[in-house]
Amino acid sequence: MTTLRTPGPTVGVVGGGQLGRMLAEAAAPLGVEVIVLDPTPDCPAALVARDQLVADFDDEDAIRDLASRADVLTFEIELADQTALDRVSEDTGTPVHPKPKTLETIHDKLVQKRELEGAGVPVPPFREVDDADDVRAAIDDYGGPVMLKARTGGYDGRGNVPVESKAEAEKALESVAGPAMVEAFVDFEREISVIAVKGDDEIAAFPIGENVHEEEILRETVVPAGSSDAVAERARDVAADVLEVMEGRGVYGIELFETRDGEVLLNEIAPRPHNSGHWTIEGAHSSQFEQHVRAVLGWPLGSTDLRAPTVSKNLLADVEEPREAALSDLDHILETPGANLHWYGKREARPLRKMGHVTVTARENESTDDLLEAARDLEEAVTFRS
Amino acid sequence: MTTLRTPGPTVGVVGGGQLGRMLAEAAAPLGVEVIVLDPTPDCPAALVARDQLVADFDDEDAIRDLASRADVLTFEIELADQTALDRVSEDTGTPVHPKPKTLETIHDKLVQKRELEGAGVPVPPFREVDDADDVRAAIDDYGGPVMLKARTGGYDGRGNVPVESKAEAEKALESVAGPAMVEAFVDFEREISVIAVKGDDEIAAFPIGENVHEEEILRETVVPAGSSDAVAERARDVAADVLEVMEGRGVYGIELFETRDGEVLLNEIAPRPHNSGHWTIEGAHSSQFEQHVRAVLGWPLGSTDLRAPTVSKNLLADVEEPREAALSDLDHILETPGANLHWYGKREARPLRKMGHVTVTARENESTDDLLEAARDLEEAVTFRS
Repeated sequence: MTTLRTPGPTVGVVGGGQLGRMLAEAAAPLGVEVIVLDPTPDCPAALVARDQLVADFDDEDAIRDLASRADVLTFEIELADQTALDRVSEDTGTPVHPKPKTLETIHDKLVQKRELEGAGVPVPPFREVDDADDVRAAIDDYGGPVMLKARTGGYDGRGNVPVESKAEAEKALESVAGPAMVEAFVDFEREISVIAVKGDDEIAAFPIGENVHEEEILRETVVPAGSSDAVAERARDVAADVLEVMEGRGVYGIELFETRDGEVLLNEIAPRPHNSGHWTIEGAHSSQFEQHVRAVLGWPLGSTDLRAPTVSKNLLADVEEPREAALSDLDHILETPGANLHWYGKREARPLRKMGHVTVTARENESTDDLLEAARDLEEAVTFRS
Repeated sequence: MTTLRTPGPTVGVVGGGQLGRMLAEAAAPLGVEVIVLDPTPDCPAALVARDQLVADFDDEDAIRDLASRADVLTFEIELADQTALDRVSEDTGTPVHPKPKTLETIHDKLVQKRELEGAGVPVPPFREVDDADDVRAAIDDYGGPVMLKARTGGYDGRGNVPVESKAEAEKALESVAGPAMVEAFVDFEREISVIAVKGDDEIAAFPIGENVHEEEILRETVVPAGSSDAVAERARDVAADVLEVMEGRGVYGIELFETRDGEVLLNEIAPRPHNSGHWTIEGAHSSQFEQHVRAVLGWPLGSTDLRAPTVSKNLLADVEEPREAALSDLDHILETPGANLHWYGKREARPLRKMGHVTVTARENESTDDLLEAARDLEEAVTFRS
């Protein structure tokens, strides 16, 4: 049985961006303290966390320091160094969740897809790419355009290049530096995601969200998704299969394609709270961040039930050049009933950088279309440009 | 129109207890920074706040330091020194909300009652007390038991003494050191409260809550209250009248008696977020703490609409002697869908000290009776004694 003291247990987090910040926001009411490790002084999470260690994500001495002050280590970025985490954990006895091995698996998209396919998770056709011939062969085999992906280091669509025809193969490959893979381009009905949680001896999943990407960056998540009940159930089954492969406790963001014939295919996995789960802060009984805190500590998971239909919309910097962050004309967001603002505390606005998000929660019988329209209006009312 | 930067505006708070902590928790998503002033090193709010100044509440130099780092000053304890606040505000130009004058009015219960009565707010019969004769005269005049109250310094019922008969007057007066007042004992149907907000040029109020006190300490708040619509409307009208008297922006906790014939009488006012408003964190669209942050900054107020029927229950230390705080057997709270734990981060458990609270929010068609039963079960399952 869980006992809570003061100070409460401490979660050491590699990375102190907005995910670390929202993790610390969720941890505080539970009496759980958060220390983050991040190279940017006064990183977004620093305001809310107990402390920040200013160091690179792969600084093993700093990770060791973090481990010595924490009951458990976790990470909020895929850039975390799995080898260093593994070694520190072994030396200090401080566990890491999810397991560094899982981070390693996910880190390489080819390894990830192979492992998941081997476990029976439905994935789009894919293959390793050594040269342009492999890309052209994939176009022939899959019968259409393909997506060329850097195996490592991709994020928010960086490192993903659509290849429409064999003539483009050479050039596309040049634009993806380093090892690559290629995947059949999925002509999807919609993109959906499942935020799933692996606890000590239980798993849980939030209702599926429907995601809208533009320029490969997430713009909106709508919950409930427009999928049929059968598709939603299939998605949660796939998520459960994915969790079987993942080692270690925590929240996993599982992005899926719903195909035009109602199949569900795995797109990508994030071994951490995910942008498409931010809606859970207001929309569910306990947020993805609270669930992650509970899970990594080995506490019982909370309820993932929907409280009300909810839409989240990212506030991306609408600037042409980097400049000091200043979001103006906030009043519309502040005055709208059911709207909640989340500011990430980044000092610099860069083109399309995620600076915050706004959530709109149904108050009466509003449809998700109503919520989406409201969220879009709110986002249009603000600017980083003035 | 409001603009948000990084760092955001800073609210300086005199007091760093649980109210300051929940204020900082609510401020963070809005990008608002909180600095608290509190004499206890590593006070409850310190974990979440940007910084803590360790100093006494009436340390004018420290308040000046706080003012120099803040865009606005506020307080979370009535012990704040209104003279010092006034002087610092005048010298530094940093505004204080609510106004120190209001703090002063509220600080002396006799002055408070006189001012409110003068403004047409319904109050129980009361009078100043110089000696035991005044108490006996009140018993005669009001025709029954009275409540003897210390004019200043009372909190959580400390300084309130019921006087059943004239024979008790002398002794009761001895137990209340310093200036006193006496009030007719109200034979109430229920105790209710309105959490009201005074903004820049708007006011707002949350749905009324029904409060259960034992040993003059709040135990539970149930929302919606069992009052009729007419009584609820009357309570909100009284709250609006009270706000007219209060000077300065912010949240006010307004405790009322609902009499057996459906009248509403003012009991007490707190010029700050109030224990009976903790339910708003999960139960309303924006919490009393978020509203206080918005109000003191002069931002638009948020929606005070109910999201779902909600009960909050205090977790008081069930100890006989002070001891290190350790709340055991938490799993029942953590596992219950719709239950949310709030831990205040106090190091020492003292008899009946407020250590945290738990909120239970309706998930489907649960009645407030169901919620209250659930909350009581949860509170009974935990202990500070093991």
